[in-house]
Amino acid sequence: MSSPDTIDNVLSQVDTGLDASLERLFALLRIKSISTDPAYAADCRKAADWIATELQGLGFDAAARPTPGHPVVVAHGPHQAGPHVLFYAHYDVQPVDPLHLWHTDPFEPQIVEKDGRKIIVARGASDDKGQMLTFIEACRAWKAATGALPIRVSLMLEGEEESGGKNLPPFMKENADELKADIALVCDTDMWDRQTPSITTMLRGLVADEIEIIAADKDLHSGMFGNAARNPNQLLAEIIASLRAPDGSVTLPGFYDDVAEISPELKAQWAGLGFDEKAFLGAVDLSQPAGEQSRSVLEQLWARPTCEINGMIGGYTGDGFKTVIPARASAKISFRLVSGQDPAKIRAAFRAHVEAMLPPDVSVKFTPHGGSPAITVPADGDFLRQALSGLTDEWGKQAVITGSGGSIPVVGEFKSILGLDTLLIGFAHVDDQIHSPNEKYDLESFHRGIRSWVRVLGALAQ
Amino acid sequence: MSSPDTIDNVLSQVDTGLDASLERLFALLRIKSISTDPAYAADCRKAADWIATELQGLGFDAAARPTPGHPVVVAHGPHQAGPHVLFYAHYDVQPVDPLHLWHTDPFEPQIVEKDGRKIIVARGASDDKGQMLTFIEACRAWKAATGALPIRVSLMLEGEEESGGKNLPPFMKENADELKADIALVCDTDMWDRQTPSITTMLRGLVADEIEIIAADKDLHSGMFGNAARNPNQLLAEIIASLRAPDGSVTLPGFYDDVAEISPELKAQWAGLGFDEKAFLGAVDLSQPAGEQSRSVLEQLWARPTCEINGMIGGYTGDGFKTVIPARASAKISFRLVSGQDPAKIRAAFRAHVEAMLPPDVSVKFTPHGGSPAITVPADGDFLRQALSGLTDEWGKQAVITGSGGSIPVVGEFKSILGLDTLLIGFAHVDDQIHSPNEKYDLESFHRGIRSWVRVLGALAQ
Repeated sequence: MSSPDTIDNVLSQVDTGLDASLERLFALLRIKSISTDPAYAADCRKAADWIATELQGLGFDAAARPTPGHPVVVAHGPHQAGPHVLFYAHYDVQPVDPLHLWHTDPFEPQIVEKDGRKIIVARGASDDKGQMLTFIEACRAWKAATGALPIRVSLMLEGEEESGGKNLPPFMKENADELKADIALVCDTDMWDRQTPSITTMLRGLVADEIEIIAADKDLHSGMFGNAARNPNQLLAEIIASLRAPDGSVTLPGFYDDVAEISPELKAQWAGLGFDEKAFLGAVDLSQPAGEQSRSVLEQLWARPTCEINGMIGGYTGDGFKTVIPARASAKISFRLVSGQDPAKIRAAFRAHVEAMLPPDVSVKFTPHGGSPAITVPADGDFLRQALSGLTDEWGKQAVITGSGGSIPVVGEFKSILGLDTLLIGFAHVDDQIHSPNEKYDLESFHRGIRSWVRVLGALAQ
Repeated sequence: MSSPDTIDNVLSQVDTGLDASLERLFALLRIKSISTDPAYAADCRKAADWIATELQGLGFDAAARPTPGHPVVVAHGPHQAGPHVLFYAHYDVQPVDPLHLWHTDPFEPQIVEKDGRKIIVARGASDDKGQMLTFIEACRAWKAATGALPIRVSLMLEGEEESGGKNLPPFMKENADELKADIALVCDTDMWDRQTPSITTMLRGLVADEIEIIAADKDLHSGMFGNAARNPNQLLAEIIASLRAPDGSVTLPGFYDDVAEISPELKAQWAGLGFDEKAFLGAVDLSQPAGEQSRSVLEQLWARPTCEINGMIGGYTGDGFKTVIPARASAKISFRLVSGQDPAKIRAAFRAHVEAMLPPDVSVKFTPHGGSPAITVPADGDFLRQALSGLTDEWGKQAVITGSGGSIPVVGEFKSILGLDTLLIGFAHVDDQIHSPNEKYDLESFHRGIRSWVRVLGALAQ
């Protein structure tokens, strides 16, 4: 359906329309949609309405839909042959403090030149308004050049990604029938590097638990009781230490039972990425990988589960010294999971392990802090193959498949609530300063991002 | 020199003078000598002057001597045959907050009846004004009944014991020649129980160190870095866990090298004390001793060194959860030492052990928080034997030798600055509520405490 000629026409439309696309981006960037601060609730509403209006102008059935928090914009293009995609991005932005570190007004976007590249500077330029508009402007170009989109497109654009996003999952559940599609597309990630487009297909899951070890019923004096009384700091340290073997692996029984090895093809592709372990660790003043010694750093980060002690505290931690044996000590512990691992099973194994280490006169209190499974998009699917080919065509360099050590909750919700796999395609760069002063988006990211979506939509129509 | 008849005369003098002794105690208790609060500096001065004047009245060459803080009262009796003792106590008291929990004015002493016993209720009644006056009133009785003290007596009474006592060691060093004696006496401890007097001859020492483990140069996101980046919480926990073996012993190389076994005699005597391990631990809701499993609780507390984690902190410890890998984690760790152990050697062994556990890209910062050796008074000394006999005569029950798990810095300073052993003899009880509202001292402790010192002074004159 989408011939090379057609694609070329749409791409020309992108190029000639770029200034107008930038004007629209600037209009959206000027809206102070800081979701975490109630003072900007009206601005969030304004941003949602602005987007809905734009989408209506492109022929979408679009509306800013109410939630207990900020609106969710939902838009549906006309029924159409080919697959049905559900595109996700978010219109809210981070606060701008500390304002004095900004070189320009964060809500008065500018194009400036830096290191020989043109960049768009504004809060939200990269995260996520710029990325969001690459998709919308690609739809606009298709419409302008051909009168229609090449496939069926719906959009779900939220306004609480930067502030916890508690209202989105219930909204998705309530509107699950309406939101069903064949695949989800998310534009909120980076390219591999300036030359290489990428699709993220593996996201680690997360189990977070807090444990509090309770020994004596009051703080004790270590002169009076030291040796005889159980010190919960010591016991907590022993529990934590027991979670990792000397080879860096996690010791919980069954922890790796459901962990699959990555395919030889993916392993080879990752090896070909030329990831610089020394540079990655050196950037934060480290030199030695801490995890499983038999695995590469990239594998440790993208394809292997981990156990991390995110916080621990017990006893006297102020200035000076107090010879106390505390009654309690606690830790916040999380497990990043990979595909196949069941969060409930991992949590149960962790708790059983802790309980087995307790002397009879010591108790533990567990407080769960959420759990979500890892996400893996099948690496041999048609959608993935088509999207990779679209990206490769645009950038002239083979698009790569990457993992991510982090968790993006909405991807889990697409799977669990809507049954959808997700393709994470983005054009941001690690130096975009998202969440920081002087956030920017490369003009090239915006322009070729739009072009990339034109090609991906065309490829998905094959 | 002190015949039984002489002793009986002095004891009669104590009994007939008890009301006058109490009046003097009440006068001292009315002075609000709270050393930690600068608002009471004049009261501390007043208490010191009051004591110096009383001692002058007993024929002592006495003065409240200035320090950068509160005065130290130093008094010397006339040269005299027999040994020369240096008596120590402190005239300062703890603050009285929370005042509303007191049943009577903390600085208006009362004698009330409780559980069939008469008790003196006031701040400082037990800690340490009441205990201090047992000795001074014993001197008064000797003077009144015989015209002289039976041995040579000096006193050093400080006013900063409850507020850090930083000025006493320099004062002792400056006046070391003047303060030299044959033995130090300290009245600031408990009886074993209401029937059994005791002398504390073993005090544990202390080495306190703070360690900070420094990995990356900034806090990291556990999604981005988890597995690959060293987590200092994990490493600190592994270090702490490595300090104790499964049998409860401390693992530092050489830690027990200089630790002597207690003598079979002392072991037998301690066994005879009938110490109730279950009750001791049960009082703080514990049931199992945590230290060396082959040792009794009393031995663990009095005669065995320990390693305690007094505080530890790292990463996010507020409400909720943050998936951070912190750059740093720290712990406050102390070792209680027993006789023979060298604080410097233990500190060096600890630091070497920590450093040996660090990967090359992790550093540690050590901050020392003081160190003092353990104190042991030779159990076969003449002074100890004589003092035990005096106490046994007064209470009609064999006085016992006890240890203490804690450290009393002045006892170390008597040894290190003045070369003196110390006999710790006191008449307080564990229910005296020292440092708490409604502090009390049993009238029996005061009365028979004075009588005990009369006998101990007589016995030391033999």
